[in-house]
Amino acid sequence: MNEYSSKLLEATVHELSRLPGIGKKTALRLALHILREDAVYARNLGNALIRMREEIVFCKKCNNISDNDFCEICTNSKRDEQTVCVVEDTRDVLAIENTGQFNGLYHVLGGIINPIEGIGPSDIQVKHLVERVNTEEIREIILALPATVEGDTTGFYIFKLLKPFEIKITTIARGVAVGNELEYTDEITLGRSIINRLPFEGMAE
Amino acid sequence: MNEYSSKLLEATVHELSRLPGIGKKTALRLALHILREDAVYARNLGNALIRMREEIVFCKKCNNISDNDFCEICTNSKRDEQTVCVVEDTRDVLAIENTGQFNGLYHVLGGIINPIEGIGPSDIQVKHLVERVNTEEIREIILALPATVEGDTTGFYIFKLLKPFEIKITTIARGVAVGNELEYTDEITLGRSIINRLPFEGMAE
Repeated sequence: MNEYSSKLLEATVHELSRLPGIGKKTALRLALHILREDAVYARNLGNALIRMREEIVFCKKCNNISDNDFCEICTNSKRDEQTVCVVEDTRDVLAIENTGQFNGLYHVLGGIINPIEGIGPSDIQVKHLVERVNTEEIREIILALPATVEGDTTGFYIFKLLKPFEIKITTIARGVAVGNELEYTDEITLGRSIINRLPFEGMAE
Repeated sequence: MNEYSSKLLEATVHELSRLPGIGKKTALRLALHILREDAVYARNLGNALIRMREEIVFCKKCNNISDNDFCEICTNSKRDEQTVCVVEDTRDVLAIENTGQFNGLYHVLGGIINPIEGIGPSDIQVKHLVERVNTEEIREIILALPATVEGDTTGFYIFKLLKPFEIKITTIARGVAVGNELEYTDEITLGRSIINRLPFEGMAE
């Protein structure tokens, strides 16, 4: 007997369980939920997935996900074109946009250097970043990469590549997260926050 | 600006985040994963969802999910047609099938009585169960319902309905789970396992 009593259900569970963080049990729960919903929901979800994958493009300037050749941020004349924030992926763009603290452009690498997973400099959009620095009027590059070994490696690699250019290269501050108790902050973060201490007025919003 | 820098991405995140247990952040993570995969994966997943919802049927005998009018269990001549196990949904059928301890047929209620969520006896396949008891040669009904107030309510309701028939009605045993320490077992379960104690040889597999 078919394990799932239906080949159609089995196929759906199989495809769903290929998603990250979704095992067979969760996939089955999701499939049964979709079965209980209106048929229009399954159609909307299925078609949204297919259309997204087939029609989405990457911005020719910043490499962010976009519906057009150039994304809404790069084509927005109110943004500061001289400051470019380098991030790993689209989620980081969303996170930084949500802070409301940045008005420049982005450069989405589409990954970070990770030798263990076989991701080298040529697998991410580093060359394209150098081209941008060469051709655009960029004054400052802000590295907003993950606070991990891979993030630091990628940052250092980019720093070395961009050093010959007359350009300011900064990195986002690491330190004690707002609202966190010192005693629960890991010692490396706390150590860095002491080394990179700021004049008190610098804390003001 | 569009929150997700792409309307296609936004639509996918919106539809995915309607699934149970999947919030906006997880939906975005899944959508970005799908974007990185081959286009064939998005098509397979999308089409599996749509086909499943449109083509799946419920077995006319046991109400389980099926690709045909009658499911593979109900049409299997090797199964014992005189013993019917009543369960809440398809997942329970899978769980019991996986034990390899049951060779009868099933009856899938498609839910349990839950007044708080507005699910009454007419919303689940109880009437159909009574019809089956009336027309089929059923000797025993095993209630395999959740060990919750709603499960007990549903079991009691079915018990009252089937009492007039000359039929054995049993319920699966509640007790200390295999491998569990007594001190970590909740007192109601432990109490029930004492009340429903078995002769020692009954424990043998």
